Parts: sequence; structure tokens; C-alpha cells
Amino acid sequence: MPTTCHCLPIEANRFLIVGGASLVGSASAEVLLERGAAEVTVLDSFYQGSADNLKHLQGNARLKLVEGDVMHLPQLLAAAKGMDGVLHLAALMSISMDRDPWRGLDVNVRGTQNVIEACCLTGVKKLVFTSSSAVYGYGLGLAGNLVETTPFLTYGAPPGAIIYGATKVIGEQLCRDAFAKRGLDYVVVRYSTVYGERQHYRATNALFIIETHDRVRHGRRPRVIGDGSDTKHFVHVSDAARANAAAFAADATDIAVNISGPRPTTTLEIVRLVAELAGKDLEPEHVEPEPGKVQLSAGGAWCMDHRLAERVLGWRPEVDLREGIRRLIVWREATGK
Amino acid sequence: MPTTCHCLPIEANRFLIVGGASLVGSASAEVLLERGAAEVTVLDSFYQGSADNLKHLQGNARLKLVEGDVMHLPQLLAAAKGMDGVLHLAALMSISMDRDPWRGLDVNVRGTQNVIEACCLTGVKKLVFTSSSAVYGYGLGLAGNLVETTPFLTYGAPPGAIIYGATKVIGEQLCRDAFAKRGLDYVVVRYSTVYGERQHYRATNALFIIETHDRVRHGRRPRVIGDGSDTKHFVHVSDAARANAAAFAADATDIAVNISGPRPTTTLEIVRLVAELAGKDLEPEHVEPEPGKVQLSAGGAWCMDHRLAERVLGWRPEVDLREGIRRLIVWREATGK
Repeated sequence: MPTTCHCLPIEANRFLIVGGASLVGSASAEVLLERGAAEVTVLDSFYQGSADNLKHLQGNARLKLVEGDVMHLPQLLAAAKGMDGVLHLAALMSISMDRDPWRGLDVNVRGTQNVIEACCLTGVKKLVFTSSSAVYGYGLGLAGNLVETTPFLTYGAPPGAIIYGATKVIGEQLCRDAFAKRGLDYVVVRYSTVYGERQHYRATNALFIIETHDRVRHGRRPRVIGDGSDTKHFVHVSDAARANAAAFAADATDIAVNISGPRPTTTLEIVRLVAELAGKDLEPEHVEPEPGKVQLSAGGAWCMDHRLAERVLGWRPEVDLREGIRRLIVWREATGK
Repeated sequence: MPTTCHCLPIEANRFLIVGGASLVGSASAEVLLERGAAEVTVLDSFYQGSADNLKHLQGNARLKLVEGDVMHLPQLLAAAKGMDGVLHLAALMSISMDRDPWRGLDVNVRGTQNVIEACCLTGVKKLVFTSSSAVYGYGLGLAGNLVETTPFLTYGAPPGAIIYGATKVIGEQLCRDAFAKRGLDYVVVRYSTVYGERQHYRATNALFIIETHDRVRHGRRPRVIGDGSDTKHFVHVSDAARANAAAFAADATDIAVNISGPRPTTTLEIVRLVAELAGKDLEPEHVEPEPGKVQLSAGGAWCMDHRLAERVLGWRPEVDLREGIRRLIVWREATGK
């Protein structure tokens, strides 16, 4: 009996990145091109994304940029035609979801339905769907080791964050449904907070690094909420991009895996690191949370465990927070961001 | 300083029941009319509902039945105009969600957005949004006392059930969002499995009672999956309807409460009760789960704790399973269902 392999090698295959003119999209396009993809088409509506994010890949003949919207199924069908793999990144996150839940639900729910539909109808071989630690919630009791079976803790979290997490839960289940009913191979990658070069201002937790950098580079003391013992678990964008490539290439399907950086950190450690790497001798200032702002506090020590991804994808994170923040600061200073 | 009351008395007020030509809708209309509502308008698309479900209220001049769809915002705006309270019931549940997630997501997500929008735009005083024990998931580890802060356990559950639960999570958070940003008073009632007169074949767990009754009334032995120690927690439709009325009338807003029957039961107890009340001396037959069928098994003893609803709504369930099943069987035999 023949065994079925669920690998989609990067080399000589064609990939579509939906929502790709973004932090993770631009780094993923770079990795796929480096590894010999025959074509990488980036589709983006430019609602959040920007062509600027792909400038570093300019001139690569295998890269194409197409304007298109996940809400527009015909555009997705046209873009997916002839593709071997699809990486679906288009989404509104907690802050944007809080500002505009109507659009957020459209993009995250209907958009994902459209992407899956396009994959099934055009014969795409494998879908990588990007989910989030938000599927574990941001509730007040979040603590300990988050593994792939950890439930979704919503109590005490802001509506935008819960809605965002719930849309990712739905997206993951739509993938399972498409696998079961229509045979679509897929891997769900649940990122912890992604940060790095081409960082935007839309991600609640990653924002913390760049807001801290914004303060210290203007000579102001960095701020931490409370005593700064709050845990954050970041993953550098290059590690997330490598995980996406590994999700295509590995013999894995119908599975969701956590993708996180080498280890979690406290907010106090982060602000100290940012100040140090920015060359500023500034002591952190302890402040109260701003009312009305979507600030995600786990309230406990937690870690997003990525050992399943190590086993299933043969991937592990390579960039620690010191190196990642160093690269982010270099990029910000070089580009004037 | 004046204190704000979030009560909406039933007497002399006007109510719209969205998705009301249904099991819970018909019983809720009955309670609201009995308690002196000036008008009860039932809006239904008849996709799942049926005018038959309102026959027992025929001739009541305060009851109106309007054909309309939650997907059609203008119809909701027209129906909500002049209403004091809106009860939102329209939803696809796990089985229907499994069959048609596209429609299910439309109805449960966009439909709920439309209902909330209609409430805000027409000045409705209070919304009662009907959620479900599905927000706690149906995962394999579900056990113990489910309270309102219990997380959403998805691992091991079928996609349709998880998607259904996630749409209810989203609906609840859209209510929170509308309360915070637009001042809409609301109460979320999270039902355990509703059963009773005018029972349909669409609810995974309640189906268990009528499928058992279908077998025993044809002289076949009732079936239980495994040893029958699986817990179910039902609530009789009349108790759910009273809870809906209490949610309007109570001085409560911006809160979600569990609504369940007097106590949980094992599946073995249920089949014995159905056989006994149907007057059949038939011993249960122990069977394996049917593959591919959405069967929800908690795998452990659990209870949906409704003590918060007792405190906040001044409500408690009155109909135990013996009395409820007796009424259901009487109704089925009287109507030939």
C-alpha cells in the first residue's frame, strides 16, 4: 500500500501569501524565495499591509505582488490558480478588532472561509493557516505551560481580544472541516507575539517593544505596568517565517502547533533590554494600566510551549530576545521608523 | 444622584423575538404574553422554524408573526422599531453547523451583529442574547462544575461543535462591546440542553431524548453509548422561557448567566426514564459511538451551575426531568410528532 506524504517542498513550488505585505508575510516571502520557490505571489488589500514591506525583495523576478481582498472570493480564486501552497496571514488583531469588530469579523471569518474555498476549488496542495496564542485567551488566570490542548480562557479579557481569539478558533476548525470533508492538507501555526523588522503598531503585545523604544530613544524613562513581573512570550519574525516554511515542507497535516521564541520574559526584563540595546541608561518607571486601552495582561507566569512544533515540523526558534530586539532597533534606525 | 435600573418589566412592554418560531421562541412568547406584554412580535425566516410552533398561541391579538431573516438588516430594523425588548434566538447549532458552516457562520455571527445593530439604532431598551453551554466546549476533559468563568475546552470535540461554541463566544462579546460603546443593556443566558414540547431534531443532546423515545415507542430497546455513565444536563423549555423573561425583568445588565435544569443526569438514567414514561419495559442496549455522527460526549461527570442566575435573575428551574419528559411524550403523542 502506498503511503501518502503530506510534505510540500519549497523548492520549485509556487506559493501564495494572503495578507503578505506585512511583518510576517514579508519575512515568509523572503524565506520561501531563499529556499528556491518557483514563485511567491503576495496578495494584499493594503488595508493594513504596505508594498514598502516588500522593498527588501525588490527585483526578485520570482516575487509578484497583487492587490486583492480576502473578502473578494473571485480575486482569491484567480490568485490561487496554479499555486501549490497557500499561506493565509490576513487578519485583524485585538486592537483593530476592538476598533472595528464588523470589519474584523468579516476579514477573519469570511476571509478565512474564502481562502479555504479558493484552496479547495483550485486544487492547492497545502494550506498553512496562521493562528495565535489568542486561542488560549488572555484571561486573568492564564498561567503555566500553554500546550496545544490548553482551553480558551476568556474571563476578564477585553471583548476585542476574545473576539480575535474566537475567530482564530473558528479558522482552525474550518481547516479541520476542509481536511475531513474535502481532503485539504493543512497545518495551523499558532504564533506567540511576533516582533521584528518591519514591525507595525497594531499588535497589542509587540507594541510594547516599539513603544518602549519610542520612549527611550527620546530620552524618556521606559514604562512598565505594575511591578513588571508580567510574562510575555515573543517570537522573532524570522523564526515565525521559518516555521511557516517548515509547516509546508514537513510531513504533517491536520494539526495545530505552537510557535514561540526560545523562552518567555517579564516586561521588566524587556524594557531593561530595550534601554540597554538603544544605548540609554534609563531606569524603568512603574505605572498603572491605562483605562480603556486594550492591554493584555496574563497576570501570571506562562510559557507557550513549542515542543510539539519541534517534533512535528523539525523547527526550533533561533533568535533570542536580545538578538531580535537588536535587529529591530537596527532596522528602525536605518529606515527612520 | 439617580440610580439607573436595568429592569425591563414584561407587563405593557413590547417584545421582538428573533428566530421565535422555534422550541424556545414559542415557549418564550407564551410566557411574555401570559405576563401581560403589550405585544410580542416573532420574526423568523422559516429556514428552521415553523409557524406550527406558534399554533398554541393562535388567536392572541397581541402576538404577531413576521417573516424575516437575521441576515437582512433592513428587515430587523423594521421589526425592532418601537420595541422595548429583543430576545435573540436565531442560530444554527452544532449539527447544522457541521453540515453547513458557511450558513451557520452567517447566521450566528453576521446575524447577531445585525440584531445588535438593530437594537442600538432603534433604541431598544434591553437585549437578551441566548448563548449555550457550548461556550464551555465539549472537550474530552469536560468535568466538574461549569461556572460562568469556566474556559472553553475545545480539544477532542468535532469542528461543528467548536465553531458553534465560538460563534456564541463572539455573540456574547459583541453584546459586551455594544454595552460598553453604545450603552445597550443586555443579559446573556447560557442554556444547557433545552428539551420539551415542540422539540425538533436539530439539537445534538436533546435529540437523545427523542431518538430514545422513537425507538421505545416502536418496541425497540433504547440505546446508550458505552456504559451510559455520560452526563447530560437538560433544562425544560418552560424553565428556559421563564429565564428569558426574568432576564428582561431583573435589574441586571452586562452579565452572562448559566440556565440549566434542577440537576444533571446520566444517559442511562434518561433512557430508563423515557422507557418507563412511555410505558415500555425495555432494557437499554449498550452500543459503540457511531463514527462520523456529531455526538457530544463529555466523558466525565459535570454540572452546569446555575446559582449565579438564581442570585442575579431571581429565577430557578421548576421542571425536573421526569416531569419534563412526561410533558414531551404527551405532546408528541397528542400531535403525532
